[in-house]
Amino acid sequence: MAITMGDASGVGPEIVLRRAAEGALLGAVVYGDLAILRRGAALLGLEVDLHPVASPSDALAGVVNVVDLGRLGPGDHRPGVLDAASGAAARAYVERATLDALAGLVCGLVTMPMNKEATRLTDPGFVGHTELVAALCGAPAVTMMLTNATLGVTHVSTHCSLREAIERVRAERVHEVIRLTDAALRRFLRRPRIAVCGLNPHAGEHGMFGTEDADHIAPAVAAAVAAGVDASGPLPADTVFFQAVHRDRYDAIVCMYHDQGHGPMKLLAFDTAVNVTLGLPIIRTSVDHGTAFDIAWQGVAFTGSLDHALAYAWKLAGRTQGAPTPGS
Amino acid sequence: MAITMGDASGVGPEIVLRRAAEGALLGAVVYGDLAILRRGAALLGLEVDLHPVASPSDALAGVVNVVDLGRLGPGDHRPGVLDAASGAAARAYVERATLDALAGLVCGLVTMPMNKEATRLTDPGFVGHTELVAALCGAPAVTMMLTNATLGVTHVSTHCSLREAIERVRAERVHEVIRLTDAALRRFLRRPRIAVCGLNPHAGEHGMFGTEDADHIAPAVAAAVAAGVDASGPLPADTVFFQAVHRDRYDAIVCMYHDQGHGPMKLLAFDTAVNVTLGLPIIRTSVDHGTAFDIAWQGVAFTGSLDHALAYAWKLAGRTQGAPTPGS
Repeated sequence: MAITMGDASGVGPEIVLRRAAEGALLGAVVYGDLAILRRGAALLGLEVDLHPVASPSDALAGVVNVVDLGRLGPGDHRPGVLDAASGAAARAYVERATLDALAGLVCGLVTMPMNKEATRLTDPGFVGHTELVAALCGAPAVTMMLTNATLGVTHVSTHCSLREAIERVRAERVHEVIRLTDAALRRFLRRPRIAVCGLNPHAGEHGMFGTEDADHIAPAVAAAVAAGVDASGPLPADTVFFQAVHRDRYDAIVCMYHDQGHGPMKLLAFDTAVNVTLGLPIIRTSVDHGTAFDIAWQGVAFTGSLDHALAYAWKLAGRTQGAPTPGS
Repeated sequence: MAITMGDASGVGPEIVLRRAAEGALLGAVVYGDLAILRRGAALLGLEVDLHPVASPSDALAGVVNVVDLGRLGPGDHRPGVLDAASGAAARAYVERATLDALAGLVCGLVTMPMNKEATRLTDPGFVGHTELVAALCGAPAVTMMLTNATLGVTHVSTHCSLREAIERVRAERVHEVIRLTDAALRRFLRRPRIAVCGLNPHAGEHGMFGTEDADHIAPAVAAAVAAGVDASGPLPADTVFFQAVHRDRYDAIVCMYHDQGHGPMKLLAFDTAVNVTLGLPIIRTSVDHGTAFDIAWQGVAFTGSLDHALAYAWKLAGRTQGAPTPGS
């Protein structure tokens, strides 16, 4: 399993190093810059046996294998600073890991945070991690799922303005996200129960508060049901989370925009949520936090999210934990 | 304290009767239809000493005083049915109770649910309970606050389409809602800590996902701070609830639209949230549920929300409980 170390100015590399030093990254290969990892380990006083490999196929047991992209030197380490070189390097780690996953050299990838602004300094078209991986995979239809142990929350759109998000609520896209959600959960569940949120308050309250619910969401739900999916909706977005969490009525919730899903989910599972990209030909999970420049390289960043993201990636791969063997 | 019984086809009157029978409505006067309440008490087998009064000033101790609007007869009792007469009557209870509160005959009002569609059958311009009370009070600027014991959540807009909600995010309105939130919490707190949500994902992420956060919300927060309010924002709406609830960083959250506040709050406090209208010259709280036609008059509706709404109304009135005296 690949772990991309994320933007060198943020908390990503530090979290990887700390968990590596604790022996928690068995069977994983880190994609990053060896110079930064070495300097970081020294800075934090961590004993980590970093071992550069040209390919994950060369990985050894008992060490922390690193596919060294060689983009940054020790002098390029600027904790907490928005930096063009670090942003470009972070992109390079993800690109290489994605290509290696597509080539079958790793089972999938777990990504540490990139900084959008830093990456946009050299790649102005960069929208987000998920969009980058999807483009590299040539995946036409993806969606971000946030999940904890019991509930998956997917999104019709994520990183765009709310105004644009409304325009993206179209029957075809809503149906697609329902389908991706159903397919993902069928890895574990026989027939996932999927709630589909409305866009407007009270799911439009019969057209009084907007027409998108009736015009675009209802037909998508009907099409999904006709295709054999256990989908319900459009449901009022302000009560559906309660119904899922406290009444166990749904296994997943399809949300129409970023905050509709992220707001309740981060309240529910701030430290335990895992970000999963659905619709890719490869496995990809991500930690559910950002670069946190303000606390980077101080040794205080929360490391639990990496554990959850890695565990879920292994689960999707059909394994309970990585084996410390070559080519893992 | 006035309690309006709500739409006769829904769960409102039944909840009032059940709590009245249990002696929980001391010092309250019910505004509704005596014929419906009498029929309902018989239907549910409840012993309730219903006492009609022409005015709350005539209220007696030891009975359930009812200001009888006389709009519905026993034959107009249609449990679970969308009914024009019931909808119009529900509006009349609120109108009379509001006018009595403005006249100082009651301390304020606690409202049981109306059915928007039923009321719109005779009042097509009806938008919602809150808007009705605000119009009757001539209040130019109100906002809905959802609150539990520790956190107040207010809204720049509530009952309109999401598309329209975006248009309503203007600096003047956002500042107004911050001001109303601050004023309401100053009844209990010296200097409330107020978080202001962004509209777009990640509060716009420096303009990458929309411009409203920078153009309209940031100036409103700056103006509030300049006026002495402890306001922060615009903050990403997906993490601010966690910060308030699990890190105790805020006493209130100003939300930009209905579901941004209602989604997390109903997950957090589905059965205990109280709806408070801020910006009125009178006290007004409301139960946090709808008419629930599907379970109306079966004796199974949850009665706890009335207790919370009534307790909060007494708290706003500076009293811990209603005294069973005339004119209360």
